Amino acid sequence: IGSHSAETDSQTEWTDVQKKIIPWKNSTASLELEMAVQDRAAKLGKSNSGLIVVASLIDKPTNLGGLCRTSEIFGASALVVGSLHYIQDKQFQHLSVSAEQWLPLVEVKPCQLVDYLQQKKTEGYTIIGVEQTAKSFDLTEYCFPEKSLLLLGNEHEGIPANLIHHLDVCVEIPQQGIIRSLNVHVSGALLIWEYTRQQVIKQKQQK
Amino acid sequence: IGSHSAETDSQTEWTDVQKKIIPWKNSTASLELEMAVQDRAAKLGKSNSGLIVVASLIDKPTNLGGLCRTSEIFGASALVVGSLHYIQDKQFQHLSVSAEQWLPLVEVKPCQLVDYLQQKKTEGYTIIGVEQTAKSFDLTEYCFPEKSLLLLGNEHEGIPANLIHHLDVCVEIPQQGIIRSLNVHVSGALLIWEYTRQQVIKQKQQK
Repeated sequence: IGSHSAETDSQTEWTDVQKKIIPWKNSTASLELEMAVQDRAAKLGKSNSGLIVVASLIDKPTNLGGLCRTSEIFGASALVVGSLHYIQDKQFQHLSVSAEQWLPLVEVKPCQLVDYLQQKKTEGYTIIGVEQTAKSFDLTEYCFPEKSLLLLGNEHEGIPANLIHHLDVCVEIPQQGIIRSLNVHVSGALLIWEYTRQQVIKQKQQK
Repeated sequence: IGSHSAETDSQTEWTDVQKKIIPWKNSTASLELEMAVQDRAAKLGKSNSGLIVVASLIDKPTNLGGLCRTSEIFGASALVVGSLHYIQDKQFQHLSVSAEQWLPLVEVKPCQLVDYLQQKKTEGYTIIGVEQTAKSFDLTEYCFPEKSLLLLGNEHEGIPANLIHHLDVCVEIPQQGIIRSLNVHVSGALLIWEYTRQQVIKQKQQK
C-alpha cells in the first residue's frame, strides 16, 4: 500500500494504522478500498455488502466508536468518518472494542461530503439521509437498494440543508415517546439492521 | 401514591422521584403501574404498549441510560432495572436525556428475577431472552406476541444459566462480523425496534 492521505502532517503519526486508512480521492483509492473490502469479506467467508455508513457529520467519539462496532458486526463495507484522528481517542476505542481493525475506515471531511456523495452516486449507490423531513419515508415502509449509502446527521443539527438536496431519499424512524429523538448511534444501528434484515430475507427468497 | 419500595433505607432519599418509582411486589403495585402507564399513554394520545424491557442484569449506567431513552421513544410500558439508584448516576442521566421522567421504572433486583418473570407469565407475557443459545430464534424470523417481555443479559456474562430455563424463548441477532457481539443497548434497541415494526405493520393490516 503506497498511497497516502492528503493530510501530510499526520502521515508519520498514522504509520502504524496506515493499512486500514483508505484515502478516497486519488488515483488508487477506489482500487485500494475494493481490495481491503474483498480481503475482509474473504476472512468472513462471505460476499461483499453493498452498505456504506457515512458518519462524517458526527462529533462525539463515543457515537463513532459505537457505530464502528455495529457497522463491523453487520458487515458494512466501510465506515466514513470526518477525521481519522478519532481512532486514537480513548472513548472511541472503548466503544469500538477494536472493530476499527477489521472495518475499512475512510476519511471524508464534512466540506468534502458533496463531492463524495456525487462520486458514490456515479458508482450506483442510493444516497439515503437519516433525517425527519416533510418528504421522508417511514422506516417501516422503505425498501433498501442493495447499494445503499447511509448519511447520518450531526448530534445537534442533523443533516444541514445544503446537503439535503444532494440526497436521493430521506428515511425517518417513527417515534412515539415524549423524548424527541434517538441517539445517533441507535438511529444508525436501526437502519443498518433494517438493511441487513431485508437483504437476509431477499437471499432466502432467492434460494 | 401511598405505597413504598421494600428498600426502606432509600425511602427518604427518593422522595422527589417517588411518583415514578413503582414497586412491583405489594398489593397495590400492579394497579399503580397500570395507572402510571395509562397516564403516560393518555399524554401520548395512544393506547398502551404490551412491551416490557427488563434490564436488571445490566451493570453499566451508560447502557441503562441509553435503554431508558430508547424504551421511552418506542413507547415501552416500563423499564425494569436492578436498582433505582442508577437514576441518580450522572452517566445514566447524560444518556437518558430525562426519559426517566416519562417512562415508568420498576426495580427488580437480580435475585428477584425468577419470581418476577413467573408473575409476568401469569399475566400473559411471553418471556423473551436476548441471548445466543442452541435453540434461539433468529431475529429475522421471530414474530413477537403483543405482550412481550424482553430480558437483556449482563454485559459480560449474558443471561445466567439458572434464568435461561425460566424463559419462553430466546432470540438472537444474526451477526456477520469478526467482532463477537453487539453492545447490549444496541441489542436491546434492535429488539425493541423489531417489536415496534411488527406492531405497526399489524395495525396497518387491521385497518
